[in-house]
Formats: sequence, structure tokens, C-alpha cells
Amino acid sequence: MSALPAGIEDVELAKAYRLLNHGPVTLVTSAHGGRRNLMAASWVMPLDYDPPKVLVVIDAKTLTRELVECSGEFALNIPPRRMAGAVFSAGSRSGRDGDKFRALGVDAFAARRIGAPLVAGCVGWLECRVLPEPGNEKRHDLFIGEVVAAAADRRVFSQGRWHFDDDALRTLHYTSGGVFHATGERIDVRS
Amino acid sequence: MSALPAGIEDVELAKAYRLLNHGPVTLVTSAHGGRRNLMAASWVMPLDYDPPKVLVVIDAKTLTRELVECSGEFALNIPPRRMAGAVFSAGSRSGRDGDKFRALGVDAFAARRIGAPLVAGCVGWLECRVLPEPGNEKRHDLFIGEVVAAAADRRVFSQGRWHFDDDALRTLHYTSGGVFHATGERIDVRS
Repeated sequence: MSALPAGIEDVELAKAYRLLNHGPVTLVTSAHGGRRNLMAASWVMPLDYDPPKVLVVIDAKTLTRELVECSGEFALNIPPRRMAGAVFSAGSRSGRDGDKFRALGVDAFAARRIGAPLVAGCVGWLECRVLPEPGNEKRHDLFIGEVVAAAADRRVFSQGRWHFDDDALRTLHYTSGGVFHATGERIDVRS
Repeated sequence: MSALPAGIEDVELAKAYRLLNHGPVTLVTSAHGGRRNLMAASWVMPLDYDPPKVLVVIDAKTLTRELVECSGEFALNIPPRRMAGAVFSAGSRSGRDGDKFRALGVDAFAARRIGAPLVAGCVGWLECRVLPEPGNEKRHDLFIGEVVAAAADRRVFSQGRWHFDDDALRTLHYTSGGVFHATGERIDVRS
């Protein structure tokens, strides 16, 4: 596998679910045949620990759906609050109208195990291979991915734990109508 | 349908997904044959808008699984931050060891369309009927529910929108090891 950019480190696969467990909004990236795309998605969650699996809903009409079906791969990228505007814009336009990375001014870097690009400036990444389930895909637009690599920005996630010390790097939760909430105050019920 | 407790109002079914869209931790309630239970669950998300559907992972060994399979119903209850301790405790014990509502000091009130009880003190509720999919249930412990009624505490959710003015009523996001985060600062990218 190629080296990760500076400041980004591998997340142990058995702990990859922790990147998603608190319900952050994600950017789904995909690529096939020289095209690439990113899509905003809140309907994403862990499905299993080991091997780690995730669920994501991908509407049938999207370019992402086409790229994921052709490639059998996708990545989940977890954006920090400073990317809220880009996430909202990603959800408001189609990759069929031109490369969305360029339109949004978002940079990409190479994933380690899959062909889909990863979004620079995010704080967590899960590289996934589709476990084909045609019934779920057709009936519910629901895709199951096995997480084959995971990484995080060590400033906010290390040794399997989130630590949101830098406000600008807090993750985001999407409600509706352009309104996000940052991941807020930490509450440790055991202390 | 019976009346809702004071301060709680119906949520239009087409907007019920907004109760879950930001990825809060939930309490899954269920009942059958004189038994009832509640279970903490983060692996919950919307699946469709209209009719509204949700997904929830319910481990095969749990009492909740037994009650949901027998009754074909469950409710998702969304707890505020002041209930973080109870949510963690709910995830750390089994309903097979005695009624968990009593053990946790949690009160219940009657749902409107299903037999499962609703958790008092929560801020959102989704009453669900299982749409049976034996493949997903067996292979993935994954249940699909159609939302048949939804309600919210009008102090934090009204006219289809969250408004977390009271800190004590902010919803919760679970990471791991007893650590939650409150739903934090509001970011409106259109303003």
C-alpha cells in the first residue's frame, strides 16, 4: 500500500466502526472508467464489527450509483465542520454536470486499497468493497460495504478514539434544509 | 389514537426521518406477552422518506430481538443528554435479568399505533412495524421498520425542525467506552 499523507494514520479495522458510530454526515466517493464523483450521505451506518461492514443508501438515479455498481467500491469520507458548505453543495448538484471535486474546490488523494479517491481535508476515511446483495440494492437502494482500509486525522482520532480538541475539526451531523450541527460537548458517563 | 402526554406533538410522517437524520443514539423499545424491554442502539438510520422506513441492527441474542420477532413492532426513542447515564446502563445489562425500565428508573407511556411502550423523558419517538425480510434479519441482524407514527417534544422539535435551545434537551451521539457527545453548535450554511 502507498504511504498516507502526513498527519493521517491507519485505523485498525476492528475499530473502524467507531469512525461512524456517532452518526456523522459523510461524503461517498467513487470512480470508474476515468470518472469520479462525491456525494453527501447521512444515511450511512456500521453494520458489523469484524470484518467491519457498513450500510449506505445510494439513490438509483445518481452518478455515484453508476460508479459504485461498475467498480464495486466506494469510500466514506468524514468531513469536519469547516467543510459544511462543500458538503451541502455536494448534495445540491450532480456529478453528471461536470467533475464535482473541481466544482467544489475539493482535493483528492489516492486510497490505499480501492480505486475511488479520498477527499483531502476530511478527518476520517473508510475504504469499502461492495458485498453484492442485488435484493437490497434494487428494493432499498441499500449497499453493504466491507471496510478494507480505514484511516483518520490523528489530531482528532487516534488509538481508536475521537478527541475533538480543535473546534474546526469537529465532525458534522446533518438535519435538513442546510442546517448541520457540529459534534458537541463530550459526556463521559463513567467519570 | 389516544392523546399524547402534554408537551409532545405528532410529527408528520413524511418528516419523521428528520428525527434520525443527524445520527443520534436511540433506545429501542419492544413488548410481547407481558414482557417489555429497552435497548440502546446507535446502528439506526432512515431508509426511506414516504412511507418512512428505518433500519436498525438488533443482535440475535438479545431479549429485544425475541420481543421484536414475536410482536413485529418496535419503537425508536431519542434520549436527551440528561439521559446519557441511563442509555449507557441500558447498553450494559440484559432485559432477561429483570425489567430494565424499573432497573434504570425509566418511565414508559403508551404508544399510539403499536404495543411497545415509549420512554418518558425522551425528545423524539418513532413507532415502527417490522417489514419482514428474513434474509436481512438472519444474515445481518438487520430489521426494516415502517414508521407508523412519530412524535416529538415540542421544546426541541416542531414544524419538522430541531431547535436545541435548551442544553439539557440536546440529543446524544455515542462513540465508544461510555463516551457520548451532545448534538452541538448549529451551522446554517445558507445564512
